[in-house]
Amino acid sequence: MRMAAGAPTRHSVGVDFWLSLSSTYTYLAASRIDALAAARGVAVRWRPFTLGPIFAELGWSTSPFVLQPQKGRYMWRDVERACDALGLRFKRPSVFPRNSVAAMRVALVGCERSWGPAFARAVLLANFGENRDISAPSVIDEILVELGLDGALVRAESESPAWRPRLRAETDEAKRLGIFGAPTFMVGDEMFWGNDRLEQALDWAARSRGR
Amino acid sequence: MRMAAGAPTRHSVGVDFWLSLSSTYTYLAASRIDALAAARGVAVRWRPFTLGPIFAELGWSTSPFVLQPQKGRYMWRDVERACDALGLRFKRPSVFPRNSVAAMRVALVGCERSWGPAFARAVLLANFGENRDISAPSVIDEILVELGLDGALVRAESESPAWRPRLRAETDEAKRLGIFGAPTFMVGDEMFWGNDRLEQALDWAARSRGR
Repeated sequence: MRMAAGAPTRHSVGVDFWLSLSSTYTYLAASRIDALAAARGVAVRWRPFTLGPIFAELGWSTSPFVLQPQKGRYMWRDVERACDALGLRFKRPSVFPRNSVAAMRVALVGCERSWGPAFARAVLLANFGENRDISAPSVIDEILVELGLDGALVRAESESPAWRPRLRAETDEAKRLGIFGAPTFMVGDEMFWGNDRLEQALDWAARSRGR
Repeated sequence: MRMAAGAPTRHSVGVDFWLSLSSTYTYLAASRIDALAAARGVAVRWRPFTLGPIFAELGWSTSPFVLQPQKGRYMWRDVERACDALGLRFKRPSVFPRNSVAAMRVALVGCERSWGPAFARAVLLANFGENRDISAPSVIDEILVELGLDGALVRAESESPAWRPRLRAETDEAKRLGIFGAPTFMVGDEMFWGNDRLEQALDWAARSRGR
């Protein structure tokens, strides 16, 4: 939950978790953030956004892990080792990066209700643990149904004029903040980039709260 | 010290620490690696190499932290926070990246003797803790003198026909291994990239030794 700006209290500092459902390191962070945040009493707001427009501004047509094959090769091995260590399923996707715009629009709706994090985690598992096509409406519907929701109805809502423009607005906000990759954790103006910085971001928020 | 290839023993698995004296995250790793490796009984071989030719192959004229200003801005803040946490001096260099080729040639000589790590650490401190021009022969000499060496003599040796080509040879070897950034830790064929992976690399080496 987000607190009103300009009204700092003992509980006012949380972490904004900027995430992409196409991002391997978001998969790792999403699997870890709830328990780590709870242990520190830190509130987390999940904020889906799309990396495409941000990469495009850098002149990149796709993920740097595709444009730089050596870095890409390393990334897959690194993620595999991390999944091993976390006991997290890993199956290298046959398509990368997968288009997650439709799933991300649904996630945005869910993040303003209660089921956003569970939905995001399920989509990330489908993408990186099961090699399923998360751009397919049928896959999105199936995940929504497992959460007890009406897939077609929620998807239609996410594409409605009230909701559809919000993913772009969130992405514009990410740009404004200087975000250049996912996952990114923001604690006020303080930026922490990557799954490796999750604990540091949460610790920063916990310390800020006490000031 | 490096062990003979093809003769695995209980002690045969070490870590190759591929480093650049122009690299901020090498500064962090160089300050931490000795104690962490000693605690695990893991041998470390320091291997200076230059990033320039590797970036050039990616079509980059300089560091990605310069080419991508948002990532660069983040990097400086991230390094500053890390130095705070480690109690390591930090002074943002007025020139980045600094040309470290001459210093790296000297470091290569030192890494085959005993003083390579101490020299590399002193150059990194000069660059990132004191904002000194590590491309200047006078600065390199001063650091060598502090280590009890004859600066001009060692520098001349590092530029001699026997030594000078070796930095390029090491950089070619780094390329062959698929290295794309610094610091990189190699445990056999297993790659670990970045200061954040130092502990994981050392743990991997310690476990491999026991196999």
